[in-house]
Amino acid sequence: MEIGIYGLGRMGANMVRRLLRSGEHRVVAGNRSPGPVDEAVGEGAEGAYSMQEMIEKLEPPRVVWSMVPAGDPTEKTLMGFAELAQEGDILIDGGNSYFRDSVRRAAALRERGLRFLDAGTSGGIWGLEVGYCLMVGGDRSAFEHVEPALRTLAPPDGYAYLGEAGAGHFAKMVHNGVEYAMLQAYAEGFEILKKSPYGYDLRALSSLWNHGSVVRSWLLELAERAFEKDADLESIRGYVEDSGEGRWTVLEAIEEDVPANAIAGALFARFASRQEDSFAMKVIAALRREFGGHAVKEAGPGGGG
Amino acid sequence: MEIGIYGLGRMGANMVRRLLRSGEHRVVAGNRSPGPVDEAVGEGAEGAYSMQEMIEKLEPPRVVWSMVPAGDPTEKTLMGFAELAQEGDILIDGGNSYFRDSVRRAAALRERGLRFLDAGTSGGIWGLEVGYCLMVGGDRSAFEHVEPALRTLAPPDGYAYLGEAGAGHFAKMVHNGVEYAMLQAYAEGFEILKKSPYGYDLRALSSLWNHGSVVRSWLLELAERAFEKDADLESIRGYVEDSGEGRWTVLEAIEEDVPANAIAGALFARFASRQEDSFAMKVIAALRREFGGHAVKEAGPGGGG
Amino acid sequence: MEIGIYGLGRMGANMVRRLLRSGEHRVVAGNRSPGPVDEAVGEGAEGAYSMQEMIEKLEPPRVVWSMVPAGDPTEKTLMGFAELAQEGDILIDGGNSYFRDSVRRAAALRERGLRFLDAGTSGGIWGLEVGYCLMVGGDRSAFEHVEPALRTLAPPDGYAYLGEAGAGHFAKMVHNGVEYAMLQAYAEGFEILKKSPYGYDLRALSSLWNHGSVVRSWLLELAERAFEKDADLESIRGYVEDSGEGRWTVLEAIEEDVPANAIAGALFARFASRQEDSFAMKVIAALRREFGGHAVKEAGPGGGG
Amino acid sequence: MEIGIYGLGRMGANMVRRLLRSGEHRVVAGNRSPGPVDEAVGEGAEGAYSMQEMIEKLEPPRVVWSMVPAGDPTEKTLMGFAELAQEGDILIDGGNSYFRDSVRRAAALRERGLRFLDAGTSGGIWGLEVGYCLMVGGDRSAFEHVEPALRTLAPPDGYAYLGEAGAGHFAKMVHNGVEYAMLQAYAEGFEILKKSPYGYDLRALSSLWNHGSVVRSWLLELAERAFEKDADLESIRGYVEDSGEGRWTVLEAIEEDVPANAIAGALFARFASRQEDSFAMKVIAALRREFGGHAVKEAGPGGGG
Repeated sequence: MEIGIYGLGRMGANMVRRLLRSGEHRVVAGNRSPGPVDEAVGEGAEGAYSMQEMIEKLEPPRVVWSMVPAGDPTEKTLMGFAELAQEGDILIDGGNSYFRDSVRRAAALRERGLRFLDAGTSGGIWGLEVGYCLMVGGDRSAFEHVEPALRTLAPPDGYAYLGEAGAGHFAKMVHNGVEYAMLQAYAEGFEILKKSPYGYDLRALSSLWNHGSVVRSWLLELAERAFEKDADLESIRGYVEDSGEGRWTVLEAIEEDVPANAIAGALFARFASRQEDSFAMKVIAALRREFGGHAVKEAGPGGGG
Repeated sequence: MEIGIYGLGRMGANMVRRLLRSGEHRVVAGNRSPGPVDEAVGEGAEGAYSMQEMIEKLEPPRVVWSMVPAGDPTEKTLMGFAELAQEGDILIDGGNSYFRDSVRRAAALRERGLRFLDAGTSGGIWGLEVGYCLMVGGDRSAFEHVEPALRTLAPPDGYAYLGEAGAGHFAKMVHNGVEYAMLQAYAEGFEILKKSPYGYDLRALSSLWNHGSVVRSWLLELAERAFEKDADLESIRGYVEDSGEGRWTVLEAIEEDVPANAIAGALFARFASRQEDSFAMKVIAALRREFGGHAVKEAGPGGGG
Repeated sequence: MEIGIYGLGRMGANMVRRLLRSGEHRVVAGNRSPGPVDEAVGEGAEGAYSMQEMIEKLEPPRVVWSMVPAGDPTEKTLMGFAELAQEGDILIDGGNSYFRDSVRRAAALRERGLRFLDAGTSGGIWGLEVGYCLMVGGDRSAFEHVEPALRTLAPPDGYAYLGEAGAGHFAKMVHNGVEYAMLQAYAEGFEILKKSPYGYDLRALSSLWNHGSVVRSWLLELAERAFEKDADLESIRGYVEDSGEGRWTVLEAIEEDVPANAIAGALFARFASRQEDSFAMKVIAALRREFGGHAVKEAGPGGGG
Repeated sequence: MEIGIYGLGRMGANMVRRLLRSGEHRVVAGNRSPGPVDEAVGEGAEGAYSMQEMIEKLEPPRVVWSMVPAGDPTEKTLMGFAELAQEGDILIDGGNSYFRDSVRRAAALRERGLRFLDAGTSGGIWGLEVGYCLMVGGDRSAFEHVEPALRTLAPPDGYAYLGEAGAGHFAKMVHNGVEYAMLQAYAEGFEILKKSPYGYDLRALSSLWNHGSVVRSWLLELAERAFEKDADLESIRGYVEDSGEGRWTVLEAIEEDVPANAIAGALFARFASRQEDSFAMKVIAALRREFGGHAVKEAGPGGGG
């Protein structure tokens, strides 16, 4: 089929490649800056150096897949295409958008006669090779129209229609919340192993657990790779970003009255990992000095604070 | 090789079967009560209706693998065999023993000239078919001696020698701690999905996530099976036992000064799942009535209290 | 001074009383339904059976203090008075409003030439006797104008101007978040004491701790009272509501990247206290059956599920 | 009455002072090193430069109160006095001993005909002035014998007999667990306030909350003092020790199947406060790089790790 991919960052560029490699699709690759477009053209895509050009190079009903960052960039991209598109065209948001934004955008686009899909996309840098897990919500007829592309992008059985607008990004949001907590689970386990007196080889142990144990998983296979590169992770600082979905999952848990200690705790552990010093713990140190005369550590360049 | 398996519960009986099916081993199957021994004999094992008989039916250096429950039964079994065994014999504890007990037992057996292995065993009811993940600590020469049996019991690459006595059970303990937290991660995610307005088919979503997503795992494959049997888990109560390893993992985290919020939280969630009513929450309800005049729910047969 | 109190629920009615008892103020008491107005009139207030009547009975610059529930009722009350008020009048929101609403309302009222104060109010049913702790944000000149009433409503040193609009309700929000976590702290402690083999008299122990120990507090004094009424809290179910501020505190912690495990955990414990059964724990029970063959409890009328 | 205090650290020395100031007691003050004994003698105590001397200077039935650190020092002190004491003498452990040790010691001392009390002692450096909250377990007749001293040491209503041996230290243990979680509650709240856009004066806000609010407490009064000394706690590092009771409280919660998220979380926050870098968070950073290509921060002198 024919599809436009707009936003040629790491994810978008790889999706263009995967579509092209299948030999089954005509791909128009667009981006705000020209460099990535040139590159995609070099790999067999048709290039679009503007939204306008992408619209012109696609036949109605057009399919435009946005792979720009969530928030403002996605808002501008979708609303920009909405201005240029015509009735029946299909806009897909493959980014990590907040599902409430997707619900709102679907309604706004529907008023213009456009069809919208929110396609939660998992797979990271492995997607090019393995395929992307695609969780799709929105207009059912649009989903059916773009299935040939979904089939190429995903591994076998790796895409599905999950329901009305927002269902895709909601599922992706929870997926990432679960991912946060799974990472935390392994991470705590490895720290306990690391500090034990047994001197474990964590790469070997990860590998062992991946053969027949209850905790085997793809993430644990990646742990093998990580420990192979750096057995004690000495080169890496324990500093972890978060990108929105974990926070939204906790907000949603609160909205739904779901006790989500594991997911919230995993999010808070990331916050703590990025603090040079903790004001909360300063308060406790100060109070312990007040009631018990306990010594405090002085803040300073060597004190992390 | 020749091996005695003592303790023919679900795990032990399946291990006897897996060893027999390979056609490579002579297996003496023993148990305190005769029924399971008869059954094993019917499947090709030699039967031992007492510890004494098992010792008599094995050639020195004997290999006796205990698969009885942790705690008193394991203590009695190992110490019972220690009385009967002779220098150079090998005793293996494949149960979920506390690693500190294994350290102690290894020392006690070493004084008698016996060799001990602590073999943390994961795989559950799937081990018969898939093989058991075996995390082994203890006497290195004993490990080498029993490798032919380990190779049969485990899937390829599914067993390893991890270090001195206790290293096997310590690794299994942490494995289970990680398992608790992973289960909690998925569980919270599924509850958030379940209470969303999207009416997700959780079996289909589990299946989707297992094809290309970051959170794919064996446990998630089992989730597909569970939701296939009972889409809303209506037949199951949210009541979860725990069996020691999770508690020990938290104790060990405290011993090592490791912040283990995810694992401890998963353990506490199990405790809470088994409470008919929570005294802590009664206290809060009572205090809110005191300071704010907030209504309380009366305890009673219908009140869960 | 002269002040109108609109909303004569438990809190509002007591505030009218406290103002009247001082003998220093002329109080116009208003409410949507007439009963509470009649009652306040019986105690010395002037009655206002409508917003219009309240406006008519006050001299400009009028001071109207809203004590209706947060959310829609507060929105309607404040916007209703805004329609009737004239430039320079002062509207005060003493309810538990979300601070973001107060910021928005302050701006909307400012455009109409009205002055707004958000007055976080703590003290519960004890406020009548002890005084209310008043955390006030908003228009500084308005604060100064209403200080005579604040001085009467609060205990000595029990009111303060905290900053621009929202500062009062933000401080009250965090106050309640801290309150959730403090209650959880005591509650867990009492449950551990209760389940110990020592058979503690929790009323006596609360009283003891209130005399010289580090954890003495007003809440602990209330615990004495609660345990005096019902030593084992047998008549109370462990079911705890929450009313918004705890949730907002967690949202704000997430907004600010603050690890807030204690406050979030206290909120989640309330969610769990209200669940008849936990879907998350059903998932774990189901998965444990799948991998380990562990028995599950069947849901049913007696099973809480 | 007549009493020996052995162990003249900050707590012990202050207890000697408080007893002396009452003018009601003859106090023998002992310590392993002579300096603190000289000081106590200068304030009116009789000095004991050895256990032997303390025993000699007291009339049977002797009362010896040990105020040395928990663990080995307490073991040596109590067992040392046990060698020297005679039937009917009373040994009191006022330190922060593990209640299981107190149970064991009570039994050992009982066999020698000695009476034992475990006296959990709260109050910190304020005890000298305010009095110590004394939670006492053990031999009832011994408790009655030493009541005159308890009455002097405690504030009014600030001591009580709580039950058999261990009941005092168990109550003190839980007291400290509650203290950990209360401190965490305030600490999180102050961090959220601190990072808000309102620029709160935390001393003023602590003071405000102490006048009529639900969260008023002695710890919050100490917060006023701490913020008065250093408004932003800039001179203090967020590094917090823990001294045993918090850990034991969590162990006991696990022993009793009590979900203790708040207390355990407060303990874990202290662990995290003392880590220069977190291995767990390194694992997560490494895994995120593996699956998503996310950048990691390099460890290094400036990187905290």
